[in-house]
Amino acid sequence: MHTAILIIQCRDNKGIVAAVSRFLYENNGNILAIDQYVDEEMGDFFMRAEWELETFGIGKDQIQEQFGSQVAKQFDMNFTLSFNFPKPKMALFVSKLSHCLFDILSRYYSGQFVVDIPLVISNHADLEPVVKAFGIPFHHIPVSKDTKSEQEAEQLDLLKENGVDFVVLARYMQILSGNFISHFPNRIINIHHSFLPAFVGAKPYHAAYKRGVKIIGATAHYVTEDLDAGPIIEQDVARVRHHNTIDDLVQIGQDVEKVVLSKAIKYHLAQKIKVVGNRTIIFS
Amino acid sequence: MHTAILIIQCRDNKGIVAAVSRFLYENNGNILAIDQYVDEEMGDFFMRAEWELETFGIGKDQIQEQFGSQVAKQFDMNFTLSFNFPKPKMALFVSKLSHCLFDILSRYYSGQFVVDIPLVISNHADLEPVVKAFGIPFHHIPVSKDTKSEQEAEQLDLLKENGVDFVVLARYMQILSGNFISHFPNRIINIHHSFLPAFVGAKPYHAAYKRGVKIIGATAHYVTEDLDAGPIIEQDVARVRHHNTIDDLVQIGQDVEKVVLSKAIKYHLAQKIKVVGNRTIIFS
Amino acid sequence: MHTAILIIQCRDNKGIVAAVSRFLYENNGNILAIDQYVDEEMGDFFMRAEWELETFGIGKDQIQEQFGSQVAKQFDMNFTLSFNFPKPKMALFVSKLSHCLFDILSRYYSGQFVVDIPLVISNHADLEPVVKAFGIPFHHIPVSKDTKSEQEAEQLDLLKENGVDFVVLARYMQILSGNFISHFPNRIINIHHSFLPAFVGAKPYHAAYKRGVKIIGATAHYVTEDLDAGPIIEQDVARVRHHNTIDDLVQIGQDVEKVVLSKAIKYHLAQKIKVVGNRTIIFS
Amino acid sequence: MHTAILIIQCRDNKGIVAAVSRFLYENNGNILAIDQYVDEEMGDFFMRAEWELETFGIGKDQIQEQFGSQVAKQFDMNFTLSFNFPKPKMALFVSKLSHCLFDILSRYYSGQFVVDIPLVISNHADLEPVVKAFGIPFHHIPVSKDTKSEQEAEQLDLLKENGVDFVVLARYMQILSGNFISHFPNRIINIHHSFLPAFVGAKPYHAAYKRGVKIIGATAHYVTEDLDAGPIIEQDVARVRHHNTIDDLVQIGQDVEKVVLSKAIKYHLAQKIKVVGNRTIIFS
Repeated sequence: MHTAILIIQCRDNKGIVAAVSRFLYENNGNILAIDQYVDEEMGDFFMRAEWELETFGIGKDQIQEQFGSQVAKQFDMNFTLSFNFPKPKMALFVSKLSHCLFDILSRYYSGQFVVDIPLVISNHADLEPVVKAFGIPFHHIPVSKDTKSEQEAEQLDLLKENGVDFVVLARYMQILSGNFISHFPNRIINIHHSFLPAFVGAKPYHAAYKRGVKIIGATAHYVTEDLDAGPIIEQDVARVRHHNTIDDLVQIGQDVEKVVLSKAIKYHLAQKIKVVGNRTIIFS
Repeated sequence: MHTAILIIQCRDNKGIVAAVSRFLYENNGNILAIDQYVDEEMGDFFMRAEWELETFGIGKDQIQEQFGSQVAKQFDMNFTLSFNFPKPKMALFVSKLSHCLFDILSRYYSGQFVVDIPLVISNHADLEPVVKAFGIPFHHIPVSKDTKSEQEAEQLDLLKENGVDFVVLARYMQILSGNFISHFPNRIINIHHSFLPAFVGAKPYHAAYKRGVKIIGATAHYVTEDLDAGPIIEQDVARVRHHNTIDDLVQIGQDVEKVVLSKAIKYHLAQKIKVVGNRTIIFS
Repeated sequence: MHTAILIIQCRDNKGIVAAVSRFLYENNGNILAIDQYVDEEMGDFFMRAEWELETFGIGKDQIQEQFGSQVAKQFDMNFTLSFNFPKPKMALFVSKLSHCLFDILSRYYSGQFVVDIPLVISNHADLEPVVKAFGIPFHHIPVSKDTKSEQEAEQLDLLKENGVDFVVLARYMQILSGNFISHFPNRIINIHHSFLPAFVGAKPYHAAYKRGVKIIGATAHYVTEDLDAGPIIEQDVARVRHHNTIDDLVQIGQDVEKVVLSKAIKYHLAQKIKVVGNRTIIFS
Repeated sequence: MHTAILIIQCRDNKGIVAAVSRFLYENNGNILAIDQYVDEEMGDFFMRAEWELETFGIGKDQIQEQFGSQVAKQFDMNFTLSFNFPKPKMALFVSKLSHCLFDILSRYYSGQFVVDIPLVISNHADLEPVVKAFGIPFHHIPVSKDTKSEQEAEQLDLLKENGVDFVVLARYMQILSGNFISHFPNRIINIHHSFLPAFVGAKPYHAAYKRGVKIIGATAHYVTEDLDAGPIIEQDVARVRHHNTIDDLVQIGQDVEKVVLSKAIKYHLAQKIKVVGNRTIIFS
């Protein structure tokens, strides 16, 4: 079913829900989901509405303008209008570890992710056979300090050529430059293998072991220029005990990582995420 | 802040959100929360709205009628209108175990539960000192098979005299009669010490041990005539291992029970629960 | 590293740990893990010891006899001696759902499971390409009521030819006969998509939805003739809310299923499971 | 039942379990629990053994010496010998928040904690009635920057007079000096309201809200001079969503705090904790 999705932000005020729902109703919109949230600290109102497009009284290309003039202007709204089609294009960046890649490909295979994966990019060749088994082009672009900017340029060209909408770093062990990130604002999802903000940076399982924590975790977040400090989309944890070695932590943690990353992808695909400052609203 | 709360059920249809939100807006209602849910299996629409009463344009006593004629009639709605005042009156029924009682009284003491507790009823005298330390009247009503109906009559009298709105069975180890229950439909909350529907009835920790489960749990539900089969409000679990004895399960489980029961009470107090058939919608 | 693993059961008594550890010490055994557990209800003592084989003073083929005469006899022990080599052979049975299969193959690929997978058997052809991509033979054996015994005979022949040690039912939607099961006592692992003993049998997610539970789960267990009633190896759960449809429950549940099943396989491969009656001891 | 408890640390070596268990067996010790753990990074062996004292062949006062000369010397062991009697004396330090206090007192009341509580110390008078209702002396010692050392001296005098074995900071909102801590090494348990090492210091729920985490937590740890950096005993977490306010986080978090703190107390009372560097081994 083709749907339209509206995400709104404005100062909290009386009548917003009434105005938006009237706009949809008067144009014969069949609402599938409507969620709202008031951030009391900011005093801002947020809303997400999704409705059937086929029976809607306003043509797809006119909605932006008409909603703008009939509703948004009055409340000084920021809003984004989007659609659940065409299928978005997701690029995967991987290094050597396969657990997140397999988890994503498994969901892609079974139809749980409604997405196209036009390419996988890696700084190592190891996972090429896995990716090819799924019929997905694999690009091996080794990365070195000295040539990083050229390699990122090559990556960006590939993403552009393939019309990629968003990028998933499925345990890609490289730090992206600010320039690279600027091409995909809030459209690069990373999985970090700790419950952020604990254990930012490299080797978080080693750090967790050393600190003697009883719980380890994983965090999916949008990538910003600040390392591991972007808006958190999803987190989860697993319990560990003193007798677990660092290798145990790695294995236990991988089960958390892959599920957390895939949940974040699912929210992103469903267009249920609104980034506000450095936080996320997950409409669900 | 005084608020009004509307919970609506009707056939799913276009324009419901628009009609309800217009009604609130046109009467100057400041919406504090609005949640909706469509049960696709039933084809029914559910909504909960809460708004400030003081600035509302319709008097407290007129809202029922005006909403009925202006909105509900058109959509053939079932709706309940209620208010977050006066403070509801909660009766506690206990036997000998104190963990749920303490947890509830602790929240009552700290102001986390906005409620009055006019009395505690027990079939044993053991917990009388605890209850009295909180300045709450304690009624010891021993229960025996032969005299159960008289004792329930005595309990019902006490509840009536004290204007009790709802009853919490905080590990009260007696089964209430259908007659008793009929006086408090969806207003008696029980905590059962298993993750229902597993281990209905007596001694669920023994049954869990015998079955060799790796997880135990607790379930808060509204009491109906079918034992441990009423609408579930909240559940949670804890992990156990082979070396845990039945006594261990009891101790581990008690921590789950008390938190689950108190969450259910919190939802009930906030009027966030809608019972639909044998399921609950928790607006939150 | 080659290791020997001893699992012991006997009446609880003084001196058992001393006798076993002396036996290992006097024969120059380097103990890697030693765990013991007393079942107070039964009065039985259980122990698992694992030690390095290479430096051990008794030849691999003599340990059974010498431990038997020097230690086990005195305490009237039941014991099993096994080794962590050669690599065990695991057969997978699947139907159409791929999530558990992918999870297992992903761990196999990355070396997390030290196991051989000589074949996959399915009653449907759907997953053949996936399995073949991993270079594993796939046998499509459609199952019908009338011919079930012949088909099981064919399956058993394949398992025998391939020297299969244990079988994993990775969402294999068929019930195995008592005869089949008798060939692999405590060596067939099934994943059931509910937190047993709740929702035994077919369509547990539908049943969970209907009952209105707030938590769903999955259970890995050894298969016995009683449907979904064999010894539980591992369980886990996930939280659901009223707005989750049955399809949501299926998706949320699949993430639990695959992790629970893989944990059970890991325990089985590490020879850390002792079945006692209908319960399991997980030495870990 | 009176028991003796031995906790051992030494270089890992062959024959340790055999030597310890032979010592216990030859002296007619009925072992109730024996747990061992090898820290592969350090190369150290750890063991905890608990056995019945009454039937043991060596007098309570001779065990230390005889185990030292017969076993410990040979392996160059560090060991501590202790007993599960007399009942330990626990002091509680509180400020204004009552949830942890109630949880502890509730377990004390029901006999879940086998402990004496000779006194509660607070820098505020608020909780005096609660404490007195349990018949426990309450000492109100206001703390100010300028007079902190005198007040700590007063606190230490009270702890000494009352023969206090260990101190629990049940949301005591003051930082103890290094001098104070030095009197109770690894015998002061604090509950910090975050999943450490995230959100060290004041106002962790505010910091968690600001960072936009999807999970909050609590950590029980032994107090050292480094703020919130001592050995972690127990941690747990709870899931939060974008619509939860800071007040919500506080309420949700309190349920985690109280259970985590009480679990840590339980481990401490059972003498199941061994601190190694800045980590804890929890024998269980």
